[in-house]
Amino acid sequence: MSILVVGSIALDTIETPFGKREDILGGSCTYFSYAASFFRPVSIVGVVGNDFPPEHVELLKARGIDTQGLQVLDGETFRWSGAYHYDMNEAKTLSTCLNVFETFQPVLPEAYRDAEDVFLANIDPDLQLGVLAQVRAPRLVACDTMNLWLNTKRDAVATLFSKVHVVIVNEAEARLFSGTPSLIASAKQILESGATYVVIKKGEHGALLFGRDFFFACPGFPLETVLDPTGAGDTFAGGFMGYLAKSGDLSQMHLRRAVVYGCVMASFNVEDFGLDRLKGLTEDDIANRYLEYVTLTRFESV
Amino acid sequence: MSILVVGSIALDTIETPFGKREDILGGSCTYFSYAASFFRPVSIVGVVGNDFPPEHVELLKARGIDTQGLQVLDGETFRWSGAYHYDMNEAKTLSTCLNVFETFQPVLPEAYRDAEDVFLANIDPDLQLGVLAQVRAPRLVACDTMNLWLNTKRDAVATLFSKVHVVIVNEAEARLFSGTPSLIASAKQILESGATYVVIKKGEHGALLFGRDFFFACPGFPLETVLDPTGAGDTFAGGFMGYLAKSGDLSQMHLRRAVVYGCVMASFNVEDFGLDRLKGLTEDDIANRYLEYVTLTRFESV
Repeated sequence: MSILVVGSIALDTIETPFGKREDILGGSCTYFSYAASFFRPVSIVGVVGNDFPPEHVELLKARGIDTQGLQVLDGETFRWSGAYHYDMNEAKTLSTCLNVFETFQPVLPEAYRDAEDVFLANIDPDLQLGVLAQVRAPRLVACDTMNLWLNTKRDAVATLFSKVHVVIVNEAEARLFSGTPSLIASAKQILESGATYVVIKKGEHGALLFGRDFFFACPGFPLETVLDPTGAGDTFAGGFMGYLAKSGDLSQMHLRRAVVYGCVMASFNVEDFGLDRLKGLTEDDIANRYLEYVTLTRFESV
Repeated sequence: MSILVVGSIALDTIETPFGKREDILGGSCTYFSYAASFFRPVSIVGVVGNDFPPEHVELLKARGIDTQGLQVLDGETFRWSGAYHYDMNEAKTLSTCLNVFETFQPVLPEAYRDAEDVFLANIDPDLQLGVLAQVRAPRLVACDTMNLWLNTKRDAVATLFSKVHVVIVNEAEARLFSGTPSLIASAKQILESGATYVVIKKGEHGALLFGRDFFFACPGFPLETVLDPTGAGDTFAGGFMGYLAKSGDLSQMHLRRAVVYGCVMASFNVEDFGLDRLKGLTEDDIANRYLEYVTLTRFESV
């Protein structure tokens, strides 16, 4: 079975200290699906307007991504514009135009309803819940969210957290949900809301994985040059879910490795604008960087 | 041989979201020596005023710390006052009174001049260089510095970096020295100035170790409660140097483990104000937390 993902498909305008790109392919669904496609086939659910360049759909199809669930509506595609400053840690959103997203109602093609692995990428939590309700018997469901929904639809987010196996959020989102600066206390609160595991993404500083009786910490893959952090969180999730789907094993060891694969995929993504780095990526590149990561983090039997 | 350290001995007034302490024992030399003393004997070089409470000296002596090199001058002890806010990542300095430090000229007792392991904790780089010149044939020399000296005495800091084996700085100091946000590029610049290794401390996010042909990354030990980050960098250095002195081995594997011991010692230190957590610490506590750290970072053979 392929990995099912619902999320945003966007045309992004991005400015960083290293350059500017206008109306490039972006969105949480796009980054996730492209990254996960290196591990397992992916099926997407999303919406675009009739202005959406057909070559973007071809790009996804060329990676074997199933686009049956991609709706094309009259109107303009969702657009996001953001800028990053010197330290590149946080995007400043300049504008968000929901466009066709405003009326989006995700409907799963019949073939998608037997998905075993589901990623509910960042969109309105009610839409995430609506998609989840259409999946018959998933083995593994993970979700992301964002500050907007934590501020405006906290109850829906809490319901979402109670229905998934893995909550994948960044540091700021974890702290916003819990109201405490401690990431451990934040993770405990998310676990109490019902999720089985929590992954907290820390950007260049790596990630933490919390279960009910263990936790795992790993550093980010150190990079000399970061050109564009957009999509790092979604490529992380793509590597994480992709590895778990491929391994077919949800044991603690594989969950830990999945976090490392998340860091590896995110480290590639930020090396160039938009999907440019992932477009040239091979499975060998991923395997090699994973091995580099093993080497650079080892201290007990170098 | 014992580990020789020169640095500040201070009376600190500290305010964090969890409380306030006035005129407690602090300073880079103090935190370093206390932490390193769990691994090897330590000899200190520093200065205090005649207002310095004798019980503080007794506290150091009780850990086997050699205080022959502690000068007591007429006048007041160095005082620092700082506050930490919600995220506890950075101290806001409220006041610094150099007092007896203004005229301090470190002189090594004869017995200290054969030291094999030397840590030049953060003080004026000219004083650090002055101490180093008095040591006959050290096996391992490491140094720290701070933004003040990078801004006011950059040439002296660069000279210092050229004469030590290991430069241990935090992220902000590495970036300030290099003028680039990239920590890898910053480390390369410090290596180019002559140091053999660079350790970049990232607070709760762990640390990076760079050599000429390798690097090592490790996360911080995740803590639910951090009461007071003061001294974390110096206890890190104490664990790092202490482990290397104890092991007597400067191979890459031991350097990596030394960084982990640095993270372990810093993680204890921040759990309470001042030296309070270290005061109750045992070698078993350290060994157990190291093992916990191994477990929480392992992903290839859990």
